[in-house]
Amino acid sequence: MLSAIDHVGVAVPSIDAALGFYEDAMQMELVHRETVVDQGVKAALLDVGDSHIELIEPLSPDNGVGRFLHKHGAGLHHVAYRVESIDEALRACVAAGIRLIDEQPRTGIRDSRVAFLHPASTGGVLTEIVQPAKH
Amino acid sequence: MLSAIDHVGVAVPSIDAALGFYEDAMQMELVHRETVVDQGVKAALLDVGDSHIELIEPLSPDNGVGRFLHKHGAGLHHVAYRVESIDEALRACVAAGIRLIDEQPRTGIRDSRVAFLHPASTGGVLTEIVQPAKH
Repeated sequence: MLSAIDHVGVAVPSIDAALGFYEDAMQMELVHRETVVDQGVKAALLDVGDSHIELIEPLSPDNGVGRFLHKHGAGLHHVAYRVESIDEALRACVAAGIRLIDEQPRTGIRDSRVAFLHPASTGGVLTEIVQPAKH
Repeated sequence: MLSAIDHVGVAVPSIDAALGFYEDAMQMELVHRETVVDQGVKAALLDVGDSHIELIEPLSPDNGVGRFLHKHGAGLHHVAYRVESIDEALRACVAAGIRLIDEQPRTGIRDSRVAFLHPASTGGVLTEIVQPAKH
């Protein structure tokens, strides 16, 4: 069902401040920046092999990522798996008894279709599934 | 320098209890189990594309992963990047001013050579670099 780790989401107070580690020390290429209003974040994607690191900076201290930063500080926020069909993947999750945050896919970064699974069903890990846009 | 996300490390109180989500709901294949005494954990690797999810269960509540679980609960613990040469990667990290937890590589799961970078230098993310064993 899952073809890859699409990305690992890292919550940061400032993308610009975080880029030094990823671009300079880790030598990853910054390939995309976008404000994802629906998720209340500015985001940046850095290439690593067939996957990405997604840096996310909250647009407000009061949204989900803002509260995460206040509670935990900067760090690992979520893991996202790539699928061919998010509709099939969500049906399989429901059939397996997984609680969903998003019952219907919504638009994610780079026009992907995404949905989050609830950490209560995933052993504490905020888990996203991603169907990339066709290009 | 980095060829892939080698794995994402997930701290769990019980690997056996956590496998249901990954094997049944996510349909990942369990490919390896090992007790890594040096890191104080039992570990399990599940395939996802060219990467893995690494479930880690502490051997003691008093070691690093045990304390992580007590403080944060189950969840994302670290991210590991795959490199061709860990010696070159560590030299590059030092040259970039990154603080290391392991100045010298140590033996990780499946006879890999691994080293951890200090979260103080990585924006709060416990970061591992991994040179897989040649097979």
